[in-house]
Amino acid sequence: MLERFKVPEADRVVVAEPDVRAATEQIFMGMGLSEDNAVLAADVLMFNDLRGVETHGVSNMLRSYVAGYRNETLNPRGQITTTRETETTAVIDGGGSLGLHVAPRGMDIAVEKAAKYGLGAVCVTGVGHMGGTGYHAMRALPHDMIGVAMSSSGRVVTVPTFGAEPRLGTNPLAWAAPAGEMPPFMLDIGTTQIANNKLRLARRVGAQVEPGWLARMDGTPIMERVDVPEESYMLPLGGVREQGSHKGFGLGAIIDIMCSSLSGIGPGFIALVPGFHLMAYRIDAFIDVADFKQHMDDFLRGLAETKPAPGHDRVVYPGLIEAEEEAVRSVEGIPYHSEVIDWFRTIEDELNLDFAFT
Amino acid sequence: MLERFKVPEADRVVVAEPDVRAATEQIFMGMGLSEDNAVLAADVLMFNDLRGVETHGVSNMLRSYVAGYRNETLNPRGQITTTRETETTAVIDGGGSLGLHVAPRGMDIAVEKAAKYGLGAVCVTGVGHMGGTGYHAMRALPHDMIGVAMSSSGRVVTVPTFGAEPRLGTNPLAWAAPAGEMPPFMLDIGTTQIANNKLRLARRVGAQVEPGWLARMDGTPIMERVDVPEESYMLPLGGVREQGSHKGFGLGAIIDIMCSSLSGIGPGFIALVPGFHLMAYRIDAFIDVADFKQHMDDFLRGLAETKPAPGHDRVVYPGLIEAEEEAVRSVEGIPYHSEVIDWFRTIEDELNLDFAFT
Repeated sequence: MLERFKVPEADRVVVAEPDVRAATEQIFMGMGLSEDNAVLAADVLMFNDLRGVETHGVSNMLRSYVAGYRNETLNPRGQITTTRETETTAVIDGGGSLGLHVAPRGMDIAVEKAAKYGLGAVCVTGVGHMGGTGYHAMRALPHDMIGVAMSSSGRVVTVPTFGAEPRLGTNPLAWAAPAGEMPPFMLDIGTTQIANNKLRLARRVGAQVEPGWLARMDGTPIMERVDVPEESYMLPLGGVREQGSHKGFGLGAIIDIMCSSLSGIGPGFIALVPGFHLMAYRIDAFIDVADFKQHMDDFLRGLAETKPAPGHDRVVYPGLIEAEEEAVRSVEGIPYHSEVIDWFRTIEDELNLDFAFT
Repeated sequence: MLERFKVPEADRVVVAEPDVRAATEQIFMGMGLSEDNAVLAADVLMFNDLRGVETHGVSNMLRSYVAGYRNETLNPRGQITTTRETETTAVIDGGGSLGLHVAPRGMDIAVEKAAKYGLGAVCVTGVGHMGGTGYHAMRALPHDMIGVAMSSSGRVVTVPTFGAEPRLGTNPLAWAAPAGEMPPFMLDIGTTQIANNKLRLARRVGAQVEPGWLARMDGTPIMERVDVPEESYMLPLGGVREQGSHKGFGLGAIIDIMCSSLSGIGPGFIALVPGFHLMAYRIDAFIDVADFKQHMDDFLRGLAETKPAPGHDRVVYPGLIEAEEEAVRSVEGIPYHSEVIDWFRTIEDELNLDFAFT
């Protein structure tokens, strides 16, 4: 993450990970989730916070989930049903549940099918937010599989290249592959120039946005560095046509197709509810696992040892910094903006809970 | 394609598609290919030329394939062998063949497996160039499947974000999905800012390259608009970090993993030979085909009917302009640079062939 998005030092409160995890589980149970689902949902948020992906940790997301339970757009007791199934595929419905704890069940089904047949893919409907795609893709790795996770969006915020009306969400994608000695490869990206949550975070920490990240409400790309505007649309990855925004737009559209049209929800900009697509590739259906991991170590080490360009310290591959951050934060705790801690204090009172850190 | 890459009008020679196709088939047979393989290889190139993707048509590619047969880096009589197989997956080796006619066989295997089990994925080793990923992904569509094609590269030309040494090829990806009444969705992109072939084409037509497309040999992004430099590296999609090049780099790395490490070739920058990954999703393993096509029509029509931003005429989705171009070129012929026609004349003499158009 760019430096500007980090919590300014003066506003930082560092909390031990197990304490935030326990508080988060309590909050989810307070909302009516079963203990199993609360533990799983909290695990997704802590995965992100530990890895430095604070846009998708408790800071931005937990309060919006709580709001969702309170206004009954989320069902704390939704049941998973399977609406279509083949040897390698399934479509499951979360019954209005938060996606955080439904997506892992979907990936588990994909993994089970891939264990038998080589590949597995699951579409998910009837769900709220996924909590970031990375966690769900990574869930395939302990099974010696490659994992893929995608999510379409309930919010249409992104204009197509040359467009003046939004047609896509930020439509994220994660693709994860295990290695031997090196931290696993894990790409976890929005197909826009900037994540929705990062805009909120930028507003909170007073950061500016770069030229080509956002469009004015008539679709014109904003080509100056500016404070986060009151109103704007997202631009696809690439930003403008000359910089490849048609590719980012196309990638976002693929994710819409795989998550929304293929799942039966219908196009994201019509359905206005999220859908997921989860996929697992069993590695030894293609190559012996040990050979694959050796290739991955060679590949990832080669990337990390690439001579840096002038002005840069090092080259990192997707997942490397996040693994390093996880090692540090597991020991030293997670830095939160003091405003986030205030929110925890408030909900602790409201739900009559007891957190170790507030 | 940006206007600047098109053949300047003064240099254009328009040739009927069947005439170029027949000449291309003759050339491939002249190189020693079986008629079946020659027809298939020519079909790939004509698909690209008809759809206006001249970077991957006969202009740029055919002479390099001929050179490959002549210097024996390509085997005109390579046989396909299967080195690993499960219900849904296979790894096949092309025996040193040109990829143009091996990749379709790989996709056919993926389609056959998906017809039985819902999904199919095939890695391909022992091959030369694929001739663009789009053709191979589209091959799944008549079977009511979604098709995916990827290729890693034998040439390492792309620096990672912040890197001074190249580590990836242009690692292209295609993802295609059928619709009902609308032309199919088909994204076909390199994961760099510009395709290798487009650089060659830019040089031929005297076009400039944009800021953020290329890096100097020390890895520093070239941030001015310049003529095509003598020496440069590719930058990943996004160009620079602030514009998301880490995402483009990550996408390129995924393709390397799926095509090279998963296939057993080993990392692209070590193996220095291409590999492919082909995948088919049977639509009715997730949703009734008619419903999917209705969703796709709604999705694609909605994209195409998006109100354009000021200064633009229309919004297009991936595959739309290409389908329109195909409709025109099928009737009116294909415009080539006169230099390309000269090359056809030369090889016609060399191989003692007889082309209708030269």
